[in-house]
Amino acid sequence: MPQQVVIIGGVALGPKAACRFKRLQPESNVIMLDRSPRISYGGCGIPYYVSGEVSDITGLQSTAFHMVRDPEFFRDIKDVDARSETEVVAIDRAAKTVTARHLPTGREDVIPYDKLVMATGSSPRKLPIAGVDLPGVHTVDSLEAAEAIKKSVSAGGVGSVAVIGSGFIGLEMAVAFADMWGLDVTVIELFDQILPGVTGPTLSTMARKHMEEKGVVFRLAEQVKAIEGDGKVERVVTDKGEVEADLVILSVGVVPNSGLAKAAGLDVSPRGGVIVDEFMRTSDPDIYAGGDCVEVKNLVTGQPMYLPLGSMANRQGRVIGDNLAGGASRFEGVVGSWCVKLFDLAAAGTGLTQAQAERAGFNAVTTHITAVDRAHFYPEHALVSLELVAERGTKRVLGLQGVGTMGDALVGKINTVAAMLPHKPTVADVSNVEVAYSPPFASAMDILNTVANAADNILSGQNKGISVTEFAALWDNAASGVHIIDCRENPQGGPLVEKHPGRWHNIPQGQLRGRLNEVPKDKPVVLMCNTGARSYEALVTLADAGFQNVVSVEGGMAAVKAAGVDV
Amino acid sequence: MPQQVVIIGGVALGPKAACRFKRLQPESNVIMLDRSPRISYGGCGIPYYVSGEVSDITGLQSTAFHMVRDPEFFRDIKDVDARSETEVVAIDRAAKTVTARHLPTGREDVIPYDKLVMATGSSPRKLPIAGVDLPGVHTVDSLEAAEAIKKSVSAGGVGSVAVIGSGFIGLEMAVAFADMWGLDVTVIELFDQILPGVTGPTLSTMARKHMEEKGVVFRLAEQVKAIEGDGKVERVVTDKGEVEADLVILSVGVVPNSGLAKAAGLDVSPRGGVIVDEFMRTSDPDIYAGGDCVEVKNLVTGQPMYLPLGSMANRQGRVIGDNLAGGASRFEGVVGSWCVKLFDLAAAGTGLTQAQAERAGFNAVTTHITAVDRAHFYPEHALVSLELVAERGTKRVLGLQGVGTMGDALVGKINTVAAMLPHKPTVADVSNVEVAYSPPFASAMDILNTVANAADNILSGQNKGISVTEFAALWDNAASGVHIIDCRENPQGGPLVEKHPGRWHNIPQGQLRGRLNEVPKDKPVVLMCNTGARSYEALVTLADAGFQNVVSVEGGMAAVKAAGVDV
Repeated sequence: MPQQVVIIGGVALGPKAACRFKRLQPESNVIMLDRSPRISYGGCGIPYYVSGEVSDITGLQSTAFHMVRDPEFFRDIKDVDARSETEVVAIDRAAKTVTARHLPTGREDVIPYDKLVMATGSSPRKLPIAGVDLPGVHTVDSLEAAEAIKKSVSAGGVGSVAVIGSGFIGLEMAVAFADMWGLDVTVIELFDQILPGVTGPTLSTMARKHMEEKGVVFRLAEQVKAIEGDGKVERVVTDKGEVEADLVILSVGVVPNSGLAKAAGLDVSPRGGVIVDEFMRTSDPDIYAGGDCVEVKNLVTGQPMYLPLGSMANRQGRVIGDNLAGGASRFEGVVGSWCVKLFDLAAAGTGLTQAQAERAGFNAVTTHITAVDRAHFYPEHALVSLELVAERGTKRVLGLQGVGTMGDALVGKINTVAAMLPHKPTVADVSNVEVAYSPPFASAMDILNTVANAADNILSGQNKGISVTEFAALWDNAASGVHIIDCRENPQGGPLVEKHPGRWHNIPQGQLRGRLNEVPKDKPVVLMCNTGARSYEALVTLADAGFQNVVSVEGGMAAVKAAGVDV
Repeated sequence: MPQQVVIIGGVALGPKAACRFKRLQPESNVIMLDRSPRISYGGCGIPYYVSGEVSDITGLQSTAFHMVRDPEFFRDIKDVDARSETEVVAIDRAAKTVTARHLPTGREDVIPYDKLVMATGSSPRKLPIAGVDLPGVHTVDSLEAAEAIKKSVSAGGVGSVAVIGSGFIGLEMAVAFADMWGLDVTVIELFDQILPGVTGPTLSTMARKHMEEKGVVFRLAEQVKAIEGDGKVERVVTDKGEVEADLVILSVGVVPNSGLAKAAGLDVSPRGGVIVDEFMRTSDPDIYAGGDCVEVKNLVTGQPMYLPLGSMANRQGRVIGDNLAGGASRFEGVVGSWCVKLFDLAAAGTGLTQAQAERAGFNAVTTHITAVDRAHFYPEHALVSLELVAERGTKRVLGLQGVGTMGDALVGKINTVAAMLPHKPTVADVSNVEVAYSPPFASAMDILNTVANAADNILSGQNKGISVTEFAALWDNAASGVHIIDCRENPQGGPLVEKHPGRWHNIPQGQLRGRLNEVPKDKPVVLMCNTGARSYEALVTLADAGFQNVVSVEGGMAAVKAAGVDV
């Protein structure tokens, strides 16, 4: 039976749900309302529009074959009644109507619905400080904001940019300003690392170091107190000083737009996300919701999670489209996969970090590897760093994060583990996961298998690893009294012995069994090699010989270098 | 308690098992025997050595940090007694000894073992025809063979090469000769497509077309009858003619080396693979086997499978190493993932093709998409073609294959589905699989989700698709009387209407609802667009209007072009 479906929001989830539903039930009527002038765009592309990589903003609003997704497109191609600049101001669930205000004219219409979809999205989190409304302070939340940012940069009056917040959008914007416009960019972050929440300290340091080499300045553990300027922004004031800036990007996260849902009496979580079941249905069975305005289940922790990503909106939109048409499609939840390109480096992850795992109550341990991806003899290969988070005891895999310059390859590994996470894989499952192999694409023992093998060695007590971050702390603290044994061949391990007499020692791993008398039994020994493989073998040799107080640096000198530890 | 472990074979699985075991049980003794002069090498790298991409053959035998894995390396670094040019000629299971012959001297030693590992590998399949032993006819199975091939090419006397067999090694060798040496290369294949067994006809055609554009000549469905020449190879004679060749590569598959196992009374399958359980144990509990000499369980079909890949050997080697040390590690089986680089194109797959699925008794259907990978507005993007094989009714996903120029991205998708296959995923599971998203790496609706959505539409009867191969057959047969409706905008769809009056028609999809009177009800209608998305929408419109005899071309003109169909 034909229905009337009203969809509130026309950016990502709304259009997807509308089109899917119309294909399943062409005889039904769909009205899609959005308060913005432009609908159905790829907001995730804004940094690439600002950088200039996407030259025309309509590219973000077009299909792959250059048709602009405007209301006419939805009418002609999709048979959907899309109305822009139209804000829904109230929902009457008893009467099953919405009140929609046409913003240019102020006219209000009461529109009846059989089924309603809330696709109201999110808004940038605002900081409760002075100056956030000064000209030159921007959030990155709409095509209009994107155009304003690009216009001011193009006009030439911007020399320095301050980015507040080092999440995905903040860093993507930092890259856009530094890489393509050559501006002085300073990123200010409240936490003591970039990409807080989604990476551990070592990978975060590696990513920051890469960006610093490209000229971006970071100020970590610094709290923004005010934004100041005379008629326009001139500086950001923090608890530790000031940052001069002609333009400020505020990118400290987003919050779900759930006011309308709340006003209509729908269940909303304490953190503000609309609550939906696995069918993407709200507490009212005739109202669905999805995208940036909802919370979803984290399939690793079993707890609700807020994951505002365009990819979620698209997948959830199809599920809602199915269910509007009487289907019973499910969106079971998420594992929290992400990726970001930072100049030449990709960073990506899925599942939980060590800190997230601990917060969720897991006794977790992180294993780090820095290793060559692809057959090392194949000309095009590069180092990648991976961190696998697993639960002690059960050896359950909880998450995987990584950084590397071969971005597609890294993201492929992350996606592979993401696909396993709902099945609660163990480390052994990842040790044996079948990665397609030929020398141009992988190593015979793929790095995914390797990181799981390394984790297994750690979890079983066969290896005792420390991260390069832990190594740096030991190394910087002369009082730690550690005895470093470099297990590489002398041409590699020698120079550091000369540079640090008494602290740095060199016993090539192949000679270790014959030189056990040179290893002290009375102080902590740290083993170092190129990537952590030989130092692990050395640790096995020492353990077999009765040495207890020995650890191996995970990722070895490759990780030391990538993290910028000064040795 | 210390044990003596003897390992027969020192290429891939042998060294891995040896080293893993020694790390777990350093006090035990490991003797690894190999009949070749060189051990522990990456045989998969041979095409890249022949091409010159790997300049020095020791690269294939080295660690990532340039240590050559020779017997001295195994002695000093791994504490493993590795003996090259030493062939095991007999196993006495009752006495628990092997008889090893040192090939240069002929001396035989009887070596006792507590545990034995069969890592005897495989041998190239020989063709039962005249001339296979002529000088200039090579298989690709050892570093010695690689050196002989490269030497004769480098010497300059080779102008043309015939490659017999179009599996992975045959095609990789064809690329090496054509791309890096500029030789005239003809590939002769018994089946009517390249990559038989691992791809369906459409993807195979796309891969072949790419290689043809690079100059490789293919002769399909042609049986080699003899290799001829006066003192050296001069030509290959087939059932359809002759191919002149100064050098011939015989690459028609490999067979497991299981003679020794069979002679020792171990269970061997009818197809020749040593039979092992999930612990990689043979029918003798003190003898393990793995790598190219064993059969493993296919986790999709549940049936035994022969999958001789270096990556299998490495993963199985670790499992054997664990179990030699008293562990209970499992290798549950394989899903059959593969990838190969063919000039600029990657081809990859996992699980079953349509043909394999049918042979295994599944009522299977293949869904093809050709679509843009990555956000289409991101500058660096490219088309990829994916085929998802699923079971009718249950909608269980059985396999995924693809070709595309962004190789790492493609292989990442394949690996993602490979990780799901052991869990018997449905199409809905792949529709919702969480692919990490940002514009440089993926589309918001990733192509993996898209191919599953497309398959869901086909399996539920919502879309009726035909492959471009089926379209080509209809198009080539004027008597089929099909009525083509090109649903693209006129500037794209117009020229073909002029070229094929009466056969090719153009109704842009957005106008279709108003032009239903132009659609014939009395003949089969084929809908065409850019990639199959708009033709699907057009099909929905026509179905809603009561048209029954309508199909949509999967992958649209993008697939038509990639497969080289002449329209």
